[in-house]
Amino acid sequence: MDLVIGIDIGGTKTKIGLVNKEGECLEKTFFRTKEYPNLDHYLDQVQNVSNELLSKYNGSNVLGCGIGAPNASSKNGTIENASNLLWKGSVPILSELQKRMDMPMRIMNDASAAALGEMLFGNAKDISDFIAITLGTGFGAGIVANGQLIDGFDGFAGELGHVDMTIGDGRLTGLGVKGGLEAYVSATGLKRTIMYMLSKYLVDSRFRGIAYNDLHGEDITQAAEEGDEIAIKAFDYTAKIMAQAMANFTAFTQPEAFILLGGLVNSGKWILEPLETYFDEFLLEVYKGKVKIMLSGMKGKTAAICGAAALIWEKQNT
Amino acid sequence: MDLVIGIDIGGTKTKIGLVNKEGECLEKTFFRTKEYPNLDHYLDQVQNVSNELLSKYNGSNVLGCGIGAPNASSKNGTIENASNLLWKGSVPILSELQKRMDMPMRIMNDASAAALGEMLFGNAKDISDFIAITLGTGFGAGIVANGQLIDGFDGFAGELGHVDMTIGDGRLTGLGVKGGLEAYVSATGLKRTIMYMLSKYLVDSRFRGIAYNDLHGEDITQAAEEGDEIAIKAFDYTAKIMAQAMANFTAFTQPEAFILLGGLVNSGKWILEPLETYFDEFLLEVYKGKVKIMLSGMKGKTAAICGAAALIWEKQNT
Repeated sequence: MDLVIGIDIGGTKTKIGLVNKEGECLEKTFFRTKEYPNLDHYLDQVQNVSNELLSKYNGSNVLGCGIGAPNASSKNGTIENASNLLWKGSVPILSELQKRMDMPMRIMNDASAAALGEMLFGNAKDISDFIAITLGTGFGAGIVANGQLIDGFDGFAGELGHVDMTIGDGRLTGLGVKGGLEAYVSATGLKRTIMYMLSKYLVDSRFRGIAYNDLHGEDITQAAEEGDEIAIKAFDYTAKIMAQAMANFTAFTQPEAFILLGGLVNSGKWILEPLETYFDEFLLEVYKGKVKIMLSGMKGKTAAICGAAALIWEKQNT
Repeated sequence: MDLVIGIDIGGTKTKIGLVNKEGECLEKTFFRTKEYPNLDHYLDQVQNVSNELLSKYNGSNVLGCGIGAPNASSKNGTIENASNLLWKGSVPILSELQKRMDMPMRIMNDASAAALGEMLFGNAKDISDFIAITLGTGFGAGIVANGQLIDGFDGFAGELGHVDMTIGDGRLTGLGVKGGLEAYVSATGLKRTIMYMLSKYLVDSRFRGIAYNDLHGEDITQAAEEGDEIAIKAFDYTAKIMAQAMANFTAFTQPEAFILLGGLVNSGKWILEPLETYFDEFLLEVYKGKVKIMLSGMKGKTAAICGAAALIWEKQNT
């Protein structure tokens, strides 16, 4: 059987799995990224875990290893200045890993990997123009136009989390961009908006008793379910800015669909219903009724691994 | 000799020319678009003018007709809801013109046509990722990624003049977008900014004696040359917002270059010098030093015609 190793490098977890041609993740595991501040130790751990997984599939044919990571350059094989990772500067991760695991390898921005995953295995099999948005700790985007993923000049296309929404007068992102989208639309952005709503309104809320550092996305969804006004206002505010950004993005490549992935999507109707309403409101007349908002077609917990594996499976098909 | 008819439909002028394989405009003329509010009369005029030009090139082989127009859909062959044109709604311009002139035809957003022109005849012959920006009455963009023009789902990609820069709280564009880029960065935007600066500062200026309707772009350049502070502040403000938008666009497709065309570019250093400075300031670290700002490589007065003709020449080459 042909298999591909899919690796999703996240700020919190590194997920590794084995993915077959149908995009099924047959075996998977994870470890905590921050436990390996030293890059060499980290890569040794990746190698060990990969070998462990592969040992269960003796005799299978490993076609390669695909990696999704924040701030990854597909063209340089590097991760550069990722604000959520401990390794600083330009990290030549592909060449270093290749020394340990001799097989075809590709690395890509995690959201671009997710977009490839949707094309091969998910909801974008018949869509030539779409944007995949990953809503995790940060905000990532993978842009597909004319049926091709857009890489950019040296592989850093799609860094939409750092698009300024306010002509230089708003919240700072982790990269110091004032008014950057990610500072509003992400799990972190939602937490910051809870603080903002507590400052703006006097209405009672469970969040008056919870410190910022103790706040989790699931709590905010739970509070909304229970009618907490601060939570509901925070979702509405997040959805409004996200809708504005998506209306702007539509003017760029005119996607047929946005495909949403990541933790924030688990908040369900609290984010999605106002998002649909505002998006329709903000969209230019010429685009109205033509742009779908879809959820990922990949299974939630393995979507990132399968997206990473798609980097290798894509090359097999061409 | 093989020739292509290039037609640039603008809010003020319709320019028609004959363009050879080298991108040289051998013959050209124009008429005022607004003198033909009736579409049939307009198209008759296009046909007559084209025949007149062609009569000078008897025996040459006409390969087709390329059209650049605001709000044109390449996929539908229409112009839709163009705020600078008199014909309202969805105008099936390609099929109607085809009835009069039986030859291969393509239509495209004027800025996308300009981008194709730069690829074939201008400064983007060796650039796979770039964005052409036309700064005329409005703001247009033609986006090239992976060496291909991005059309979008039904041909309306690149409507960046209507990107909101202010989270819904700014000047209205002609399409009613609050805070839309075009309301700031265009010949019209610059005029509006002169008014804004007159409201903000008390300093003396020649513009205190000129009505909005009597204001022209060339006057503003001239005033800056003479040290008029209001003019200089207006250029600085325009350049700052344009730089912010271009930094945002860079995060989208990571172009290797922006290529600038159109009337506002004639203001030269007054717009270009602050643009360079602010752009470098706003650009994310990962993009710094990698994105060039270039001027068009096509001759100013015929660039739009040659861009339109490129729609047909491109198909000859493939």
